[in-house]
Amino acid sequence: MHAYRTHNCAALRAENVGDTVRLSGWVHRKRDHGGVLFVDLRDHYGITQIVADEDSPALPVLDALKLESVVTIDGEVKARSEGTVNANLPTGAIEVFARGVTVQSRAEELPLPVAGEQDYPEDIRLKYRFVDLRRETMHRNIMLRSQVISSLRRRMQDQGFTEFQTPILGASSPEGARDYLVPSRLHPGTFYALPQAPQMFKQLLMVAGFDRYFQIAPCFRDEDLRADRSPEFYQLDFEMSFVTQDDVFNAIEPVLAGVFEEFGGGKAVTPAGEFPRIPYREAMLKYGSDKPDLRNPLIISDVSAHFEKSGFGLFEKIVGGGGVVRAIPAPGTNEKSRKFFDDMNDWARREGFAGLGYVTRKSGEFGGPIAKNHGAENMQKIYDELGLGENDGLFFAAGKEKDAAKLAGAARTRVGEELELIEQGCFKLCWIVDFPMFEYDEEEKKVDFSHNPFSMPQGEMEALETQDPLDILAWQYDIVCNGYELSSGAIRNHRPDIMYKAFEIAGYPREAVDENFSGMIEAFKLGAPPHGGSAPGIDRIVMLLADEPNIREVIAFPMNQRAQDLMMGAPNTVSAKQLRELHIRLAERPKAEGEDKARVDMAGKP
Amino acid sequence: MHAYRTHNCAALRAENVGDTVRLSGWVHRKRDHGGVLFVDLRDHYGITQIVADEDSPALPVLDALKLESVVTIDGEVKARSEGTVNANLPTGAIEVFARGVTVQSRAEELPLPVAGEQDYPEDIRLKYRFVDLRRETMHRNIMLRSQVISSLRRRMQDQGFTEFQTPILGASSPEGARDYLVPSRLHPGTFYALPQAPQMFKQLLMVAGFDRYFQIAPCFRDEDLRADRSPEFYQLDFEMSFVTQDDVFNAIEPVLAGVFEEFGGGKAVTPAGEFPRIPYREAMLKYGSDKPDLRNPLIISDVSAHFEKSGFGLFEKIVGGGGVVRAIPAPGTNEKSRKFFDDMNDWARREGFAGLGYVTRKSGEFGGPIAKNHGAENMQKIYDELGLGENDGLFFAAGKEKDAAKLAGAARTRVGEELELIEQGCFKLCWIVDFPMFEYDEEEKKVDFSHNPFSMPQGEMEALETQDPLDILAWQYDIVCNGYELSSGAIRNHRPDIMYKAFEIAGYPREAVDENFSGMIEAFKLGAPPHGGSAPGIDRIVMLLADEPNIREVIAFPMNQRAQDLMMGAPNTVSAKQLRELHIRLAERPKAEGEDKARVDMAGKP
Repeated sequence: MHAYRTHNCAALRAENVGDTVRLSGWVHRKRDHGGVLFVDLRDHYGITQIVADEDSPALPVLDALKLESVVTIDGEVKARSEGTVNANLPTGAIEVFARGVTVQSRAEELPLPVAGEQDYPEDIRLKYRFVDLRRETMHRNIMLRSQVISSLRRRMQDQGFTEFQTPILGASSPEGARDYLVPSRLHPGTFYALPQAPQMFKQLLMVAGFDRYFQIAPCFRDEDLRADRSPEFYQLDFEMSFVTQDDVFNAIEPVLAGVFEEFGGGKAVTPAGEFPRIPYREAMLKYGSDKPDLRNPLIISDVSAHFEKSGFGLFEKIVGGGGVVRAIPAPGTNEKSRKFFDDMNDWARREGFAGLGYVTRKSGEFGGPIAKNHGAENMQKIYDELGLGENDGLFFAAGKEKDAAKLAGAARTRVGEELELIEQGCFKLCWIVDFPMFEYDEEEKKVDFSHNPFSMPQGEMEALETQDPLDILAWQYDIVCNGYELSSGAIRNHRPDIMYKAFEIAGYPREAVDENFSGMIEAFKLGAPPHGGSAPGIDRIVMLLADEPNIREVIAFPMNQRAQDLMMGAPNTVSAKQLRELHIRLAERPKAEGEDKARVDMAGKP
Repeated sequence: MHAYRTHNCAALRAENVGDTVRLSGWVHRKRDHGGVLFVDLRDHYGITQIVADEDSPALPVLDALKLESVVTIDGEVKARSEGTVNANLPTGAIEVFARGVTVQSRAEELPLPVAGEQDYPEDIRLKYRFVDLRRETMHRNIMLRSQVISSLRRRMQDQGFTEFQTPILGASSPEGARDYLVPSRLHPGTFYALPQAPQMFKQLLMVAGFDRYFQIAPCFRDEDLRADRSPEFYQLDFEMSFVTQDDVFNAIEPVLAGVFEEFGGGKAVTPAGEFPRIPYREAMLKYGSDKPDLRNPLIISDVSAHFEKSGFGLFEKIVGGGGVVRAIPAPGTNEKSRKFFDDMNDWARREGFAGLGYVTRKSGEFGGPIAKNHGAENMQKIYDELGLGENDGLFFAAGKEKDAAKLAGAARTRVGEELELIEQGCFKLCWIVDFPMFEYDEEEKKVDFSHNPFSMPQGEMEALETQDPLDILAWQYDIVCNGYELSSGAIRNHRPDIMYKAFEIAGYPREAVDENFSGMIEAFKLGAPPHGGSAPGIDRIVMLLADEPNIREVIAFPMNQRAQDLMMGAPNTVSAKQLRELHIRLAERPKAEGEDKARVDMAGKP
């Protein structure tokens, strides 16, 4: 018989009754029924009920053990009596009568309970993560994460992609977010940087002639943390050669739709091949966001033209001054009180906007100051244009286009939520496409890149040479799911001549481009294929699938929001010798925790 | 028609003759046959021959292009004439007559050639890695690496393992090699460390109740580099709960044997389930190494007893002083000159040993001073015991046991190589088991751990309490293939009481253990399963399969031997602002390369 188990804790069924078995696991729960002890024995696979009565030498041992101790049980499988069969448990038809027990590990008092999963402060959960991970939800989340990643890999390979590893010790780069740095021992005064993304490497793999690259890539950004950010995070990084934007979409839609279908628990998923493609400008108008949640049926409309001449002077003034008025429907709000509308206005002010105008409507009767000043007839024109009915309210966001769009987008979300219009039980995926290549920087009073300077402009060199820069679109795209951006991506600019020209338009001389991006540019001068890709965020995908709002719930060993690993005690102080070897000194003395510890000097291999 | 290609460069066959096609790729080779130009067009998948004659507008364009430019060819598939069919090329039956060409990327003068793969200095190859990777061997090596890793993943999953990610930003640890450190911005004066291996995390995953973990894990060691070392390297890290050493072997043997069989190009592989298990002491005796190359048929023997009383005074003195004499057969050396034997002795001296004694034999006649002094009859006894024949020579390594074993091992390898006895075309895998838990430290005059202090001693607490420490073996094992250690591993000590006791035997008080290893010990006090694992080196496996002696030949973007990424320029200097944010200063000013560059400040996302 195996030293620890003949079966795992999810294996035994009614047909095993009478078998002599050995099980190992954690003491999950104990119930003492006066001389008869029931123990839920838990392992990775499941739970089996153990019974010990006064005939069993296991009784006093199990009785004395604390929860979460690890034991090996020798016993006999018995059928549960009819009333005690547990249909919710795969092993619910049986129990194991314990003839003997071996204690493998005696648990002391627990810092947090496992069974039941009561809410517990996050710092305690993270410090004792190895206990926290035993809880059912965390165990399920982490297994889900593994399965999702495994499925992504398989799906990418099925699409002809090959996984490559790119370096983690890389070079610090002038663009992007803040790098994590690693001092070099061999080259005093210099540093490696951890990759914010393997962007350059994946492009160089294309230049090197590999055709379809992907990687479940660890990425690092030393930024202040939020619920949905971790210092290290994973992307499904991919890149393809000799492709158009359509090819990228066709390659990745089956992967994403597939993984959402596989793990979405029956939720409806936008089918591969049918992801809507929404131009950036349309998204900003209709959804007030480039991350639209398409589960929300509300569509924003521009109604500026209606207010060019209006009894409502404020809107007339805004439109006259080049601003816009956007309308957000609030369908079926005839029974809502005036307070509902006023609360929305208060909310908008709290969010830092000038305010949210509104029209109420009840059985065709308009209400509120805007309707009054603009006139019922003119309001009816707007309602006709927007296809609104006689019990639908309407909110207005007015101001400079950017501000109005933002407010309208936030209001659309809030109205959708308040009116419970957000479709539940679905994952709605879409592409945002046709991002503008350039934008006018109001502060600097100049044209600058609006997003990614390394994307290929639509129309390539000809567009740069002949079009108004602000009209030029880029082959750049975002993938959005339920209002969350999963990734941005692009067809890259692989042509040095077009790159110099694009930077010139944004006011950067050729020398600055060479100085900062010589690596990429020089590579492109030695034979580069047209290429493009994207990098959907894996943590975000798992968060959506696990329905967890906090990224730390889907990472086995996350740092806390102050970028500390409370379990391992990272970051920590290091010895003076380590600093000397790295040719660095501390700019300030660390706090009390910062004394060097006496260390055991051991020959042992790790 | 697709913008870039209807087929890849390995796709077209005789049945495509007459098709109008579009291909994209790199100009691999050009041959000008007086008015007819042949171009080998290369992509990730293969090569297709393009033809352009004076009727084709593509001729002057292709003619003017430098090698490695990227083009799109529009043309027609034609059958090659009988004499020009290339049976070695999948597309060798056809060629594409170019009707038109689009230049996607114009290559400048190349820093190294692609076609032909001439030897080139490694620094140039690494600086222009994106060109170097286009070479056939490198392309094949990197694809092999990807396929090996993918196969390892599949095989581990088939064995019931689940892949988990463990943190890359971790805590610096007092044991093991030198850590790469990462200064913390949020916690002045403290540092993260990159993992040398996810050892603690994988053990904590077991404590957390996950049963069979694996990870293709990036590991980092800031050590001086050799041909087979890279600052970052990958391990097939795995760990299992509720297992004995046999379970670990049974789980991993099919994975390793499978991957060597799959990618070994027909070489014989030790079958899963049949990996020899060689106790450490036996390995040190028979092979003079704990990394024996079993392709070498030579077996070392201890012949000390024969020299307890001997006419050869040197050996008698060594044996009398507690030393040993080890014998290494040199079969069939009757035709070898005296110089062969003397050269071996010279080699041993150059390697820093005292010297390698020998006996020659020719048709039964012994030769050399040892035979002369020891006497033919006594020599015959040794030969009889070792089963040697009348034309076999014999080398002797004598001295303290450790030194003699080491010399004997090195001599065994050299003799095997010189006599061409190493079996070619096979991968011989074995386990080295039963490593001693403790050893006597001659310098410190005390018992210390001989390898890994965290392995479970065989016999557990009882052994620690009752046996001579130097007799205690550990549940520790190495996997060896063809003389290379792929990995060490162990059944871990998961019991705090046994751990304190083991450290006590090695002279470390409980307080030192708590201070240095409290994380692990405290975790084990909250319910830990028996567990064990290993972590075979992936780079090493790929090196063996690709038959490459240098690790950099199997990594897409490796650092050079001075830990520099010559392509990306890492490590490099960083801005004063970056250092300030990290609360560190340079201990010395970097050299001239170290001036801060002017940087483009861009809003762009990376």
